[in-house]
Amino acid sequence: MIPQGILTTLSQSDEGGYNYDYATVPFLAEVFKLIISGLFLWRETRSSSLATAKITTDWRSVRLFVIPSIIYLIHNNVQFATLTYVDTSTYQIMGNLKIVTTAILFRLFLKRKLSNLQWMAIGLLAVGTTTSQVKGCGEASCDSLFTAPIQGYLLGILSAALSALAGIYTEFLMKRNNDSLYWQNLQLYTFGSLFNVARLIADDFRLGFEKGPWWQRIFDGYSITTWLVVLNLGSTGLLVSWLMKYADNIVKVYSTSMAMLLTMVASIYLFSFKPTVQLFLGIIICIMSLHMYFAPPQTLVDLPVTNEAHPKTLKQVIVEEKTDS
Amino acid sequence: MIPQGILTTLSQSDEGGYNYDYATVPFLAEVFKLIISGLFLWRETRSSSLATAKITTDWRSVRLFVIPSIIYLIHNNVQFATLTYVDTSTYQIMGNLKIVTTAILFRLFLKRKLSNLQWMAIGLLAVGTTTSQVKGCGEASCDSLFTAPIQGYLLGILSAALSALAGIYTEFLMKRNNDSLYWQNLQLYTFGSLFNVARLIADDFRLGFEKGPWWQRIFDGYSITTWLVVLNLGSTGLLVSWLMKYADNIVKVYSTSMAMLLTMVASIYLFSFKPTVQLFLGIIICIMSLHMYFAPPQTLVDLPVTNEAHPKTLKQVIVEEKTDS
Repeated sequence: MIPQGILTTLSQSDEGGYNYDYATVPFLAEVFKLIISGLFLWRETRSSSLATAKITTDWRSVRLFVIPSIIYLIHNNVQFATLTYVDTSTYQIMGNLKIVTTAILFRLFLKRKLSNLQWMAIGLLAVGTTTSQVKGCGEASCDSLFTAPIQGYLLGILSAALSALAGIYTEFLMKRNNDSLYWQNLQLYTFGSLFNVARLIADDFRLGFEKGPWWQRIFDGYSITTWLVVLNLGSTGLLVSWLMKYADNIVKVYSTSMAMLLTMVASIYLFSFKPTVQLFLGIIICIMSLHMYFAPPQTLVDLPVTNEAHPKTLKQVIVEEKTDS
Repeated sequence: MIPQGILTTLSQSDEGGYNYDYATVPFLAEVFKLIISGLFLWRETRSSSLATAKITTDWRSVRLFVIPSIIYLIHNNVQFATLTYVDTSTYQIMGNLKIVTTAILFRLFLKRKLSNLQWMAIGLLAVGTTTSQVKGCGEASCDSLFTAPIQGYLLGILSAALSALAGIYTEFLMKRNNDSLYWQNLQLYTFGSLFNVARLIADDFRLGFEKGPWWQRIFDGYSITTWLVVLNLGSTGLLVSWLMKYADNIVKVYSTSMAMLLTMVASIYLFSFKPTVQLFLGIIICIMSLHMYFAPPQTLVDLPVTNEAHPKTLKQVIVEEKTDS
């Protein structure tokens, strides 16, 4: 996956804005994911081994898949409200709270236990990503941090909690039964597409149809890079969905954090951004956190000496004694 | 101990310079430590239990105590050379390397083993102190980092290695026999005072005695704060000496790092410095590092279930079986 930030930057016009309606991008990405999942599900049901694709069509199960879309809808509005109190760079810094809220909800709702070292690793990951984002000297807008009204910070925390909740709920959905991943995706992305259409329609009404209805102008200003943004967003979504089914939310936060750092490093070369000490430090911190979280504890600490893993059998002992004499 | 940086700043004149000769401060601190250690040694030898103060006066032992002074002399010159290539803020950042070089020499020369987690903690401590020192936006002199000639960085590494070597060698000296701490201090500070006098004399010759010989102007411009700087530097030295005897160099690097962070926090209140995100992040990283290094491993990771710590005795088993039936 190419980190999203790079493509999005490349898709901007020379003036730094977008020639296309940015709201159409997530909609098309949802449709892309829906089509891909549909194709895979079709292939799965057609395959010789009919037992492979498990599909639950009970409405009591299907309706659960609307909840992530609802959480994202609320999240988007909270995000919008937060940005009326804090500037984007403070919002970006607060976004790292999502790592911690994800771990907390992972523990509370999915009942997954983390060791103290793993909790520290989670804290360090949030600290590391924040470090990499600290504004260097010479960069614009300095005194914005710690100066926003308290509502801004509370909304930022709420935003981080909602974002984590969506992830944790999706993991719960994907793992609660052994339904086919593609069938689960199909339900998820159908609701996702509907909510995105609703958003486009709402935008049309808000703007009084001055540019015409969304379906007439959906591809306006699209370049090859815009399509790459759509495909990339869609593929990332499918990857996350796969992670939710076969890995977990913690693997996801590590993946997204590492992708973000990779984007920042790549941006140094692609857009001649200035390398900063804080990026370098952030990368070291995040790699250490990764190692702390995933390395087997025995390789990290010196454990007290335990008994032999495979005690000798009586036969071996007898054989050895015979050899000795 | 009051962190040294605060007193040194308070002892500056309104223009930011020093009204006194700064080279006299370490000399007087050495003399202060020498007097204190002499008094304690005298009290120790006078005490009723004569066996307590162990003193080795063999020249082959005494001469070893000159080595730390020699290392510091070389270090001061390397430091001076480094500063001709890099600016002070880059030098300060590179100073954090000392944490890592200390741990390496601690392992190599004192043969003390560290677990992988402890190595990571050491790395994190260096990263944490560096993070706290990252220049915030709006601060002067930005583009100095990563732009100095390679010699500057090599000398910086050499400087960190020498500084660590002095610490490790002192620990070796203090622990190699069970001589009285005060007797060991007396030897250390006698050489320290002599080397500092030599430095003052060398300065006099370098300046062609334009201000007169050092002993005539030693207290020129001294205020009560300057004396506090001397006493504080001296007391810190005595504390470090105690740490070398009864704790170790790693405890020392943690103490000095924490003292530095404390100074930075105190400076926010005392000198109305602006609090920065990077200081906040640095403090979190260093506290986590401290916990990772010193907490018992069992409290950090979930260890595999081992056999019972105290296996039941046969008698207990028999008693229990009787109770069952």
